[in-house]
Amino acid sequence: VPSPLFQGGVLVTDQSPLLSSRAGCWASGPQDGQSSCQFFSDGRRKVDYVLVFYQRKQISVRGGDRLHRLSGGLGCVELEADPVEGEMVLIREEFEARLLEAGLEMERDTEVRDQPACVCSVCVCALCGCWSGVISGEIFNITSKDTFFDNATRSRIVSLSFRMFLSLCFSLTQYSLLHDEWARYGAFYKYQPVDLIRKYFGEKIGLYFAWLGVYTQLLIPASMVGIIVFCYGCYTVDMDVPSLEMCDKQQNFTMCPLCDGVCDYWHLSTACGTARASHLFDNPATVFFAIFMSLWVATFLEHWKRRQISLNHSWDLTGLEEEEDHPRPKYETVLLQKRQMMRNKEKKNEKKKKKKKIETGVEKLTWRDRLPGYLINISSILFMFGLTFSAVFGVIVYRIVVSALMAMSPDPETKSNVRVTVTATAVIINLVVILILDEIYGAVAVWLTELEIPRTESNFEQHLILKAFLLKFMNAYAPILYVAFFKGRFAGRPGDYVYVFNDYRMEECAPGGCLIELCIQLSIIMVGKQLIQNNVFEIGIPKLKKLIRAWKGKGISLEEREEQRARPPQQWNLDYTLVPFEGLTPEYMEMIIQFGFVSLFVASFPLAPLFALLNNVIEIRLDAKKFVTELRRPDAVQAKDIGIWYNILSGMGKFSVIINAFVISFTSDFIPRLVYQYMYSQTGTMHGFIDHTLSHFNVSNFRPGNAPTSSYLPETTVCRYKDYREPPWSAEAYQFSKTYWAVLAARLAFVILFQNLVMFLSLLVAWVIPDVPKNISEQLKREKTLLVDVFLREEKEKFHLLQSLFSSKDQPSQGHPDTAHFRTLPLGLSQGLGQPPGGEGGESRARCRAASFSQFTRQMSMSPSNNAGRQMSMSPSNDATRHTAV
Amino acid sequence: VPSPLFQGGVLVTDQSPLLSSRAGCWASGPQDGQSSCQFFSDGRRKVDYVLVFYQRKQISVRGGDRLHRLSGGLGCVELEADPVEGEMVLIREEFEARLLEAGLEMERDTEVRDQPACVCSVCVCALCGCWSGVISGEIFNITSKDTFFDNATRSRIVSLSFRMFLSLCFSLTQYSLLHDEWARYGAFYKYQPVDLIRKYFGEKIGLYFAWLGVYTQLLIPASMVGIIVFCYGCYTVDMDVPSLEMCDKQQNFTMCPLCDGVCDYWHLSTACGTARASHLFDNPATVFFAIFMSLWVATFLEHWKRRQISLNHSWDLTGLEEEEDHPRPKYETVLLQKRQMMRNKEKKNEKKKKKKKIETGVEKLTWRDRLPGYLINISSILFMFGLTFSAVFGVIVYRIVVSALMAMSPDPETKSNVRVTVTATAVIINLVVILILDEIYGAVAVWLTELEIPRTESNFEQHLILKAFLLKFMNAYAPILYVAFFKGRFAGRPGDYVYVFNDYRMEECAPGGCLIELCIQLSIIMVGKQLIQNNVFEIGIPKLKKLIRAWKGKGISLEEREEQRARPPQQWNLDYTLVPFEGLTPEYMEMIIQFGFVSLFVASFPLAPLFALLNNVIEIRLDAKKFVTELRRPDAVQAKDIGIWYNILSGMGKFSVIINAFVISFTSDFIPRLVYQYMYSQTGTMHGFIDHTLSHFNVSNFRPGNAPTSSYLPETTVCRYKDYREPPWSAEAYQFSKTYWAVLAARLAFVILFQNLVMFLSLLVAWVIPDVPKNISEQLKREKTLLVDVFLREEKEKFHLLQSLFSSKDQPSQGHPDTAHFRTLPLGLSQGLGQPPGGEGGESRARCRAASFSQFTRQMSMSPSNNAGRQMSMSPSNDATRHTAV
Repeated sequence: VPSPLFQGGVLVTDQSPLLSSRAGCWASGPQDGQSSCQFFSDGRRKVDYVLVFYQRKQISVRGGDRLHRLSGGLGCVELEADPVEGEMVLIREEFEARLLEAGLEMERDTEVRDQPACVCSVCVCALCGCWSGVISGEIFNITSKDTFFDNATRSRIVSLSFRMFLSLCFSLTQYSLLHDEWARYGAFYKYQPVDLIRKYFGEKIGLYFAWLGVYTQLLIPASMVGIIVFCYGCYTVDMDVPSLEMCDKQQNFTMCPLCDGVCDYWHLSTACGTARASHLFDNPATVFFAIFMSLWVATFLEHWKRRQISLNHSWDLTGLEEEEDHPRPKYETVLLQKRQMMRNKEKKNEKKKKKKKIETGVEKLTWRDRLPGYLINISSILFMFGLTFSAVFGVIVYRIVVSALMAMSPDPETKSNVRVTVTATAVIINLVVILILDEIYGAVAVWLTELEIPRTESNFEQHLILKAFLLKFMNAYAPILYVAFFKGRFAGRPGDYVYVFNDYRMEECAPGGCLIELCIQLSIIMVGKQLIQNNVFEIGIPKLKKLIRAWKGKGISLEEREEQRARPPQQWNLDYTLVPFEGLTPEYMEMIIQFGFVSLFVASFPLAPLFALLNNVIEIRLDAKKFVTELRRPDAVQAKDIGIWYNILSGMGKFSVIINAFVISFTSDFIPRLVYQYMYSQTGTMHGFIDHTLSHFNVSNFRPGNAPTSSYLPETTVCRYKDYREPPWSAEAYQFSKTYWAVLAARLAFVILFQNLVMFLSLLVAWVIPDVPKNISEQLKREKTLLVDVFLREEKEKFHLLQSLFSSKDQPSQGHPDTAHFRTLPLGLSQGLGQPPGGEGGESRARCRAASFSQFTRQMSMSPSNNAGRQMSMSPSNDATRHTAV
Repeated sequence: VPSPLFQGGVLVTDQSPLLSSRAGCWASGPQDGQSSCQFFSDGRRKVDYVLVFYQRKQISVRGGDRLHRLSGGLGCVELEADPVEGEMVLIREEFEARLLEAGLEMERDTEVRDQPACVCSVCVCALCGCWSGVISGEIFNITSKDTFFDNATRSRIVSLSFRMFLSLCFSLTQYSLLHDEWARYGAFYKYQPVDLIRKYFGEKIGLYFAWLGVYTQLLIPASMVGIIVFCYGCYTVDMDVPSLEMCDKQQNFTMCPLCDGVCDYWHLSTACGTARASHLFDNPATVFFAIFMSLWVATFLEHWKRRQISLNHSWDLTGLEEEEDHPRPKYETVLLQKRQMMRNKEKKNEKKKKKKKIETGVEKLTWRDRLPGYLINISSILFMFGLTFSAVFGVIVYRIVVSALMAMSPDPETKSNVRVTVTATAVIINLVVILILDEIYGAVAVWLTELEIPRTESNFEQHLILKAFLLKFMNAYAPILYVAFFKGRFAGRPGDYVYVFNDYRMEECAPGGCLIELCIQLSIIMVGKQLIQNNVFEIGIPKLKKLIRAWKGKGISLEEREEQRARPPQQWNLDYTLVPFEGLTPEYMEMIIQFGFVSLFVASFPLAPLFALLNNVIEIRLDAKKFVTELRRPDAVQAKDIGIWYNILSGMGKFSVIINAFVISFTSDFIPRLVYQYMYSQTGTMHGFIDHTLSHFNVSNFRPGNAPTSSYLPETTVCRYKDYREPPWSAEAYQFSKTYWAVLAARLAFVILFQNLVMFLSLLVAWVIPDVPKNISEQLKREKTLLVDVFLREEKEKFHLLQSLFSSKDQPSQGHPDTAHFRTLPLGLSQGLGQPPGGEGGESRARCRAASFSQFTRQMSMSPSNNAGRQMSMSPSNDATRHTAV
């Protein structure tokens, strides 16, 4: 077993599910014996190493300290009522012996500390039967200061502790198993040991890895279909009539210049390369793939629902309900301040008018208290949206300006590489901007959510996630959305170009279509983001932080260092250098953004699922390594589902249908081709398509300065450009032609068709795949039947008991006549009977019997699995038993 | 209290939730003392009047009969072990006295019947504490023939019986309350007493009326907005430029003739009326109304969800889980036959090859067994779809032929009324066809579902509902869908008309647009269907059936009639003439089809919600009257929700968005107007719109015979028709013009915009309205806190008890030294202890204590609300109690 066995020593933090900030401190941390009680004051301070035996995988018994009772005496700290010391020692010794028997290591902290760090009055008594392999049960009792914890906290203590002990007893084996079987790259082809992960890290983290597993697994068919679609593109590229026509030097279309003045007319056949590349991603198979992926999203969501329900069942979470959440410390502080203020105001008011009623207790913050926070929120989010759009626009300007400058360059080498250079650099700038803004937005979202003063921790988490998602989503997709839907659409036409900053023409798409640019943009941002985030943010920065932490640790006084040298560092001190766990939000966020790449623009980049798959196979093991060896062990948090992330996923699924519909119909050439083939083509084939898509421009209509200053093709009178406009000789020259409107109508019709078809199919998929797997629902039914069985058997036994009771009454020779029919009643059943039956009259007897009946059944229905009844009927002839009848 | 107090005497039917067909008979019916045991054989026979005291609102005690014990003796029938007669009589007398005290009527059947109809061995013992207003509890016990009921049935008996007794004790008051407060038209403005309905009729029927109430209530705002929209149309009709232009006799458009030969050219201003009528429903407010209604649907669904959860909470259904359903008798019969066949085959096979393994028990029917059923299903459904379409087509042909014939008539009176006469008669024919097919399809759906051999009753219900819905939906909406989307779109153009049967031109819409025709169609079908269904099917036919039933009853032999005269008919005999309850499906179906009228085509008929509201206000009271006075009292069935109907509603909501989008953009003139105003109008106003929508036709291009044979306007050279086509003088004469494509694109763009906007807003509505009402979720939290409170208090008391136990042990002077620490342990806790503790050694003592601890806690955790512990700690000094320690 490697070193960081003790990782994660933080038990009670203000985020701990075990004890909220109001729980106060239980003991001192190892580093500071004096300060942990400050925990009360600011609600932020972390208290390390409390209930040491629970959070760590080894038992540390601290002799001499009050804590010894906590860890040694089965976890009982009772500082007010001093128990008999001898008994505790006895219990501790037995406990320790059993632990050693079970093969657990034990570490003793024999240093004597006289001052208990703070006084608290919580007694945790637990019977951990782990040495015999059976947990027998536990009792938690708060003996004094009833107001110290509220009920929800208590219930959480009760419910959590059982798992704690389980976790304690088996975690040593678990850890090595996880380390060897899960947290290494060599195991990439294996299923994850999800049950083990859940046992060790809790349900919430278990669900994350299970979700990641399902997602990755389902990416396999998606990538395979993606590869097939891509191969289809490769295979058919030489048969594609439009790209053949574009490359055909015979059909020599003279195109209008790409920039004003310095650019010359050019032949379309020089753009042959991009046309062929375009075909790889822009072919009928892509449409099929887009539909396939939309259904894939629906399947994935349904599949995850099923898996979640299976896990809920096997992890026994079906009955788990949402806990009542505690108010966050921040919220309580603000509420306190408000109350204070109101009271002050009241006093003032009292002086003015005595009758005014403002004394209604301030129970919660209203929207008026939060208004400033909301205003800052909205304006900040708008500002950050603006920032994102500015960044995108900045990159556009960069592209336009650099293209123009490079086009003016006298160097022909530079000129020929304009497009490649500009595109590549611009995408990299985009990527860097995205990565930087991503980090900034993450931090800003936290700050903004704090300003909202959410009441509970779960509110906080939800608001934070939504905000962060919104910002990061816009950040990651804004440049891609621009390329997909806006680039080249505002460039104008020859003779009427659109200019930015009065001098620079708006950029156009490459002659092969915008789809190929979208594809490049998408692949670079997706792959680059994942590579950099995995390497830099998930490996590099934590290492750096650890270094800094270690370096800071060296800054302690010489005296302390002396002390440290004298006393070898305990495991918990080593663990302290580990990085604290900061929640699953970043992990989920990364995956969700990736899911967006896979689902939203899949029509333009069929290889996206493949790249996602490759990334995730590594990502799982990377995360596993991080959780097992680099983070402090996170608190085990119970959760039934992945929460708001499911809604985000489902929302993205819906959004992706629309985006894909628009990409296919507006960004790709799919619809114009169809329209040409079935409406305009004379032969019914694609021959002549290129000619059809190019409009004519009479060069004499160029504005002054727009025409090439010097040309290799001086005889050109008409140049061509990609648009559907009337020719110069028409009455409505350069207006949109009828073809334009027909193609537009076809594009829009396709969007409607695609969207409704896919929505219908998705509903069908969701309907066909039942939410609850059949084996689970059968299992549930079987369990229910069993329960009913047990219940009925007991009812029957009770009836027998009752019968024997009545019949024994008819034989007055046996037992005491007065109490005969109470004789075998279980304890407590006689409670509530008005009086012991005395007379033998029919009516009173019947009434009494009815009363005893009802008592009996009420008692029984409350304890359905109580088997006292059976026991009694099995031993009816035992010694006479007498109970109080009051 | 009126007469049908005893209505609904059927207790055990093969559809009964209490006992499935396998339950057999409990007693004989009042009509036949010999035949009810046949119930076993075919699984179809109904057994009336069993457990008489439950299903009826009055207690009927039958002296002399075995049944007297059932009703008199608190419902205990035990035919095998004969109880002491005297005791039973005593109990019965007391019970009866109490009932009379409580004000219940009592009816005595003193006739002596020697032969109990059949022997069954079920004992139902119940303690009905209703006379004191408190139900104390009940015990059900099946003493023998354990295999008689399976567990699910038993559990159902247990769970249902409690409600039965409740139902018994309060039903008399309930009935008169329901009768006076609910089932009369005068109470139409009142809220329904839903809790009472549920108490009396069970949750399923309660939910139906609650749903109907919510729906009707929410129709109020919808109708109000609808009226406002209609009023807006009325108010602006004189300001609407297009209709003014149409009515303007100065702008005299000469229109092409409406039929070949006999029809003349005509002036557009003659169609002034329809244009003005059109405007009432085809104005911008309608678009707003369509959006409003889509959001209304979302609101309605969310609101119902909330109401359902509220009801679930107040009716205590939150914990209710789906019962394991019984196989239907039909299913079992088929399964049996299959098993038999397999066994026969096996035998044959055994003769051939002895090794073959087919002996795997036939546990269920596979798709192969159902294949014939499925095939018949699919082909029947397709056939019925065909039937529906044929009916629609038949009416179209009727319209075309009659129009043509009437146009040829020499009578000018006939000619002028062509359109009105034809439209009115056609719609009425449509209505009649719909009503007839509706009834046929209802019956066919049942037959088809039987063919599918669904395994359980709920499967059967679901399949039936889906099938019936599909058929009735198509039936009701096919003619409307035709008018909305197809009528007039295949008529061709002058010079190139489309003909059916070679002679008749396809019909066109009225000059005012198809919307007004859609509106007429919709209003007549909707209002007519509701009126006829309410009056004929819900009032007339049941009355008729009752008459027939009474008439049939007269056909009994003279002897029996003699007997009847001698013995006045008991209430249950009178109740037998009531109509049996046939499930809620027809009620729901009627409402769902109405919901379709309200949601699907609301863009064309804003008054639909108003008509629906008026209908429902009556419908509620009509249904109430029916349930209270005309039907036998239905079995009380538990249900958590309205089941598949919610899915159907939600599906219709989704579908309505698309339909409305298409109606607005394709059926109404909204988009062409917008396009004209913003793309073509010179002044930016609507002036010139009519001219713009009319294409030109050169009358010399008429085919021979198409032109009017004689005309009042012989000088006409160019006539106009409504379409966007190139004029005769264009190079592409009569082709679709550029405007056509532009308008088409705008229409499609509007569909996309509308659909996505409304979907987004609906999601928003669903997200903003939380599913669980705030007060309920707070209530649940409070309940949970209380539970935790109780639990913790008890744990604490247990701890105290334990402490006192330990401490008392340190004072050996008190009690018996051996068993001192068992003294106050509740019964059963000592069970499982290996041996009574004897030695005083430290280790063994500790172990023993641990063991008793674990026993204690296990026991306690099983009965969380057991308060034995508290009681014990309150009386620690009572008499010594000894239990067996084995």
